[in-house]
Amino acid sequence: MDFSLTTLGTASAKPVDNRFSSAHVFNIRGRLFLVDCGEGTQIQLNRFRISMLKIDNIMISHMHGDHVFGIFGLLSSMGLYGRTAPIYIYAPRDFASLLKFYLAHFHQGSQFEINHIVLKGNEPVQIFDSKSVEVYSFPLNHGIETYGFLFKEKMPMLNIHKYKIETYGLTLAEIGALKRGENVNRKDGTVLTAEEFTYLPYTPRTAAYCSDTAPFEKLADWIRGVDLLYHEATYLIEEKDVSWQRYHSTANDAAKLAAEADVKRLVLGHFSSRYKDLQLFLKEARNVFPNCELSQDGMVFDVPMKL
Amino acid sequence: MDFSLTTLGTASAKPVDNRFSSAHVFNIRGRLFLVDCGEGTQIQLNRFRISMLKIDNIMISHMHGDHVFGIFGLLSSMGLYGRTAPIYIYAPRDFASLLKFYLAHFHQGSQFEINHIVLKGNEPVQIFDSKSVEVYSFPLNHGIETYGFLFKEKMPMLNIHKYKIETYGLTLAEIGALKRGENVNRKDGTVLTAEEFTYLPYTPRTAAYCSDTAPFEKLADWIRGVDLLYHEATYLIEEKDVSWQRYHSTANDAAKLAAEADVKRLVLGHFSSRYKDLQLFLKEARNVFPNCELSQDGMVFDVPMKL
Repeated sequence: MDFSLTTLGTASAKPVDNRFSSAHVFNIRGRLFLVDCGEGTQIQLNRFRISMLKIDNIMISHMHGDHVFGIFGLLSSMGLYGRTAPIYIYAPRDFASLLKFYLAHFHQGSQFEINHIVLKGNEPVQIFDSKSVEVYSFPLNHGIETYGFLFKEKMPMLNIHKYKIETYGLTLAEIGALKRGENVNRKDGTVLTAEEFTYLPYTPRTAAYCSDTAPFEKLADWIRGVDLLYHEATYLIEEKDVSWQRYHSTANDAAKLAAEADVKRLVLGHFSSRYKDLQLFLKEARNVFPNCELSQDGMVFDVPMKL
Repeated sequence: MDFSLTTLGTASAKPVDNRFSSAHVFNIRGRLFLVDCGEGTQIQLNRFRISMLKIDNIMISHMHGDHVFGIFGLLSSMGLYGRTAPIYIYAPRDFASLLKFYLAHFHQGSQFEINHIVLKGNEPVQIFDSKSVEVYSFPLNHGIETYGFLFKEKMPMLNIHKYKIETYGLTLAEIGALKRGENVNRKDGTVLTAEEFTYLPYTPRTAAYCSDTAPFEKLADWIRGVDLLYHEATYLIEEKDVSWQRYHSTANDAAKLAAEADVKRLVLGHFSSRYKDLQLFLKEARNVFPNCELSQDGMVFDVPMKL
């Protein structure tokens, strides 16, 4: 059961050699969520062999060009490939004018519906819910309306210890009750407790996406304990003033957040084109939070099933 | 003195591995004309080491996404790189709504002016004129309003044969007149003819760009004799019906045009993603017009100075 992040683009504002603008695919149990859609997203999807037709949900964190200019080509190509399934785009209110422009000029001949779900709220809000996955959006601190995203595998049903079924001659009704976490009171006075008869088949996994944002206090609570945190690191600490003025984070900011929020693993991206040596980001972050990695276009960060 | 075409993107509607959407740079004596601007144009400019800040003139042949979606990122990045020089975009009337949308949402902070020159006309029209270069647009046959472009090096001034200057003791006034192609009548009755005293330092070079279009009769006259013809070849002849229905050309169509128009050299591009083996295009075209080449992303087609 997949739970991974693929980084399609790791540049900030301007694309540079080998680094495209922001675009990320979260594969949550086989369901693909495209998060941000910078110019060339469809090219990167092709390159890394991810079918655009498997994407039904697209999240746009904010309306800066390097996070959204790829949507034109992606939607057009989906039409050319014969897509009929509707697509859901979770984006700030301002996305509406882009969509209106696109629909008026470039959607003729395409056979699928585009739904814009308007992001809002001053704290985490559930924006997607299925049997096995939920997704929340939460506001970031980037000067314009911007959102981060939290992906949560749902709590699975309890499993029955197989050897107990025969030993106790459990009925289907009793198994059902125990799996729902209820205790069973038998007529003979015995109590079969869910705690004794069942176990959690796996612990749900979580991942968060924070780009673009300057640090702010509440964020740590909203992403506390996630297994994987993708966080922007546009600048190094020596450019901290520029970074905060522009509502961005340094590698040090991202690492401090990861430590404070007690996350398991940190992935950095969205590096400014001014830096040639990205290892400096890794060094700076690992000083504060050792379990940190740099993203490169096409890298896959897998979160294994937690048994 | 440069005269070349660099192909940045050679795919048709959908980008595929190693082939971006349409974008081309004509370098005419050091002046760069970007012709079409598919998604990822700025990425290809970076990759092939062409400075986007050296581009002052952009031609958009028509308003299909694969020829124009790169304009958003390109204009944005020009702003981020601190461009102040105005830019001139030669495009059909409908480009105005794209530009309006772009200016309203993504041009804040940029310090340069964007001028839209509306393409029009049922025959070749001069759209650019400088000391050494002129550019014409002409209508193509693509279902929607679409234009091709003709680049012409201007006729240079005549040069005087150096050995004649001393032999005949030519005055500056006489040299000036001869260089303008005028004959000189001396007081002693001698006539110095421009024909005898001067020569053309080089023959002006020409190049034409035709994408996207189905064949039509007048086109051969409009591009007659060019040194370099870039022409679309979306399909092979076996798909001729589909090709014409969609207002495109086959490799055979392009080659027939090149032969009929007596061009010197043909470059094919805009290949449909359905074909894996592009050599088939070359074979088909060379049967009709041998001096033909296939474009690949990043290839440079140079037209040497004609002495």
